[in-house]
Amino acid sequence: MKIAILPGDGIGPEIVTQAVKVLNALGEQFELETAPVGGAGYEASGHPLPEATLQLAKDADAVLFGAVGDWKYDTLDRPLRPEQAILGLRKNLGLFGNLRPAILYPELANASTLKPEIVSGLDILIVRELTGDIYFGQPRGVRVCPDGPFKGQREGFDTMRYAEGEIRRIAHVAFQAAQKRDKRLTSVDKANVLETFQFWKDIVTDVHKEYPDVALDHMYVDNAAMQLVRAPKKFDVIVTGNMFGDILSDAAAMLTGSIGMLPSASLDANNKGLYEPSHGSAPDIAGKGIANPLATILSAAMMLRFSLNKVEQADRIENAVKKVLAQGLRTADIYEAGTTKVGTEEMGNAVVKAL
Amino acid sequence: MKIAILPGDGIGPEIVTQAVKVLNALGEQFELETAPVGGAGYEASGHPLPEATLQLAKDADAVLFGAVGDWKYDTLDRPLRPEQAILGLRKNLGLFGNLRPAILYPELANASTLKPEIVSGLDILIVRELTGDIYFGQPRGVRVCPDGPFKGQREGFDTMRYAEGEIRRIAHVAFQAAQKRDKRLTSVDKANVLETFQFWKDIVTDVHKEYPDVALDHMYVDNAAMQLVRAPKKFDVIVTGNMFGDILSDAAAMLTGSIGMLPSASLDANNKGLYEPSHGSAPDIAGKGIANPLATILSAAMMLRFSLNKVEQADRIENAVKKVLAQGLRTADIYEAGTTKVGTEEMGNAVVKAL
Ligand SMILES: CC(C)[C@H](C(=O)O)[C@@H](O)C(=O)O
Ligand SMILES: CC(C)[C@H](C(=O)O)[C@@H](O)C(=O)O
Repeated sequence: MKIAILPGDGIGPEIVTQAVKVLNALGEQFELETAPVGGAGYEASGHPLPEATLQLAKDADAVLFGAVGDWKYDTLDRPLRPEQAILGLRKNLGLFGNLRPAILYPELANASTLKPEIVSGLDILIVRELTGDIYFGQPRGVRVCPDGPFKGQREGFDTMRYAEGEIRRIAHVAFQAAQKRDKRLTSVDKANVLETFQFWKDIVTDVHKEYPDVALDHMYVDNAAMQLVRAPKKFDVIVTGNMFGDILSDAAAMLTGSIGMLPSASLDANNKGLYEPSHGSAPDIAGKGIANPLATILSAAMMLRFSLNKVEQADRIENAVKKVLAQGLRTADIYEAGTTKVGTEEMGNAVVKAL
Repeated sequence: MKIAILPGDGIGPEIVTQAVKVLNALGEQFELETAPVGGAGYEASGHPLPEATLQLAKDADAVLFGAVGDWKYDTLDRPLRPEQAILGLRKNLGLFGNLRPAILYPELANASTLKPEIVSGLDILIVRELTGDIYFGQPRGVRVCPDGPFKGQREGFDTMRYAEGEIRRIAHVAFQAAQKRDKRLTSVDKANVLETFQFWKDIVTDVHKEYPDVALDHMYVDNAAMQLVRAPKKFDVIVTGNMFGDILSDAAAMLTGSIGMLPSASLDANNKGLYEPSHGSAPDIAGKGIANPLATILSAAMMLRFSLNKVEQADRIENAVKKVLAQGLRTADIYEAGTTKVGTEEMGNAVVKAL
């Protein structure tokens, strides 16, 4: 089994190193191959997603991704900026199904900015469509405004769109995920304003016929943003489009106060996937050895579970992470009085030991 | 001075009645004229925004709006649904500047789901553009997908767009609002993905040259959703587009836990405006006499301040509201042990008495 390792920028390399150490400690035969991506890709060969990196990702059975981005690339033209690598990987690998759990570990209940009774035991899953919507819709650009009161001025424009098949396949992913959990799915749309999302709602409602055991409800995106703050535990699985999912999944992650703990998976139609922590590249703490590697280690566990069919090994890693938390080990981002502060490498070593 | 009173549906009529009572108690000469809107407009004349209602709103110096919507209209065709009235009013009256304060009154600090230290003293202002963006962009609809892997299938689509002049005028509103506050403005975009919002960012940056006394920063919408949960007090004024503003302003309102207290203003280029509570029509509690009228009363105060140039009377109302809170009066939505629970009408009477 071949795994592409794409550490990226900022804290990416440090945290991926720990996840690789954990993978190697499982006693399995993985072929790991590393390649530069993001700012590192640009440095290596003038493009955030070098040809060879994309080819490696295509050839591999799964991709373990760190994080990309650094202020020093902010002045590059957009096509050369680090985040284009992640968009390019999603599109080129057809990774349409993004799974983003927002889980609050009991030991970390205090990390949240929300009151403990609102978030303790939080366990929701956001299923975000990842290769459609206004992220990739054409046409887009800056043009002369063709009509209306601003006719003749410059205007920026983009196209939101979802085809029936695109909605169906992500709906299936979401219903199936709900079947394995509490069997409740909330489809988030803006059907009261957008044609795209009235269509979305109609198709999701139709797919529901194949999953009578799952309770489906529909919620407007503005209301969903409110309910995530008001009573997040009422949700089980949320499914939504690329743009709304970008916003809601980050809000949901932040509810836990411990985004350094949250993994994510981006899957294609055959469960090949890219796995990355939900947090970013944090260039401000890069190289200091203090970043939390657990989201990346848990991403590796998701990879074993979803793409490599090694459920038992995934369980082992997840249990090891629970164990180090129970031991009181904390990186700086989740540290509180009474626990033991450790660095990136110590945390990785502790997980290996706990395996 | 002529004020159009549009009570709407659900709790709309009850709460507007209290606000009208407060207006009448000021001892000023207002000409108030009431018309049906939303579901009530549909019942009266088959359309959520009857011609006569729109004409009244156009002729008036300001509009006081309750709320629209009820489950019983959910099965109507979209153009006939209550919320089309609010979209129609915004577009026809050119109400492009939506001001949505998110303020946490010290007495209500416990109402929030967030920890007191995160939200106590919260006072942020969201400036949302209200007549552009994907809300109104053409073309839109359901068509046969013209290209790509889903070619030939049906697809829903919409157009996001912002013309230079549209961005400039809302940026001016936001910079001027910031000048009257803590002089910090955060422009929220998704410039890393959307052409519309790279253009938005460029224009806001250009307008900033006219406001050197205001500190401007730019934030991606997903990060803004996170920062609102993590450290909302770091914001002063936020400016963003119609779609992102819809989501973020509701999230920000919910941070306070007392959305029943939050007014809003939607202004045109000459400060004529429509004023409405930030909460909805709450059909589940309509007619029970328990709805909180304070957001509507505070909306009337905003109306006096922004459209009718009666700053002193606006202050009087706002102080009266503070007084009834200090007296311990609470409607059910903000009630807690140790305070006095009152109904809609009692609360309105208490504000009148406190004037
Ligand atoms: C970096 C950016 C393009 C990306 C997105 O918007 O999808 C990121 O925010 C994410 O959620 O993975
Ligand atoms: C009712 C709906 C069309 C409206 C919007 O999306 O603007 C509402 O959510 C609001 O924020 O006023």
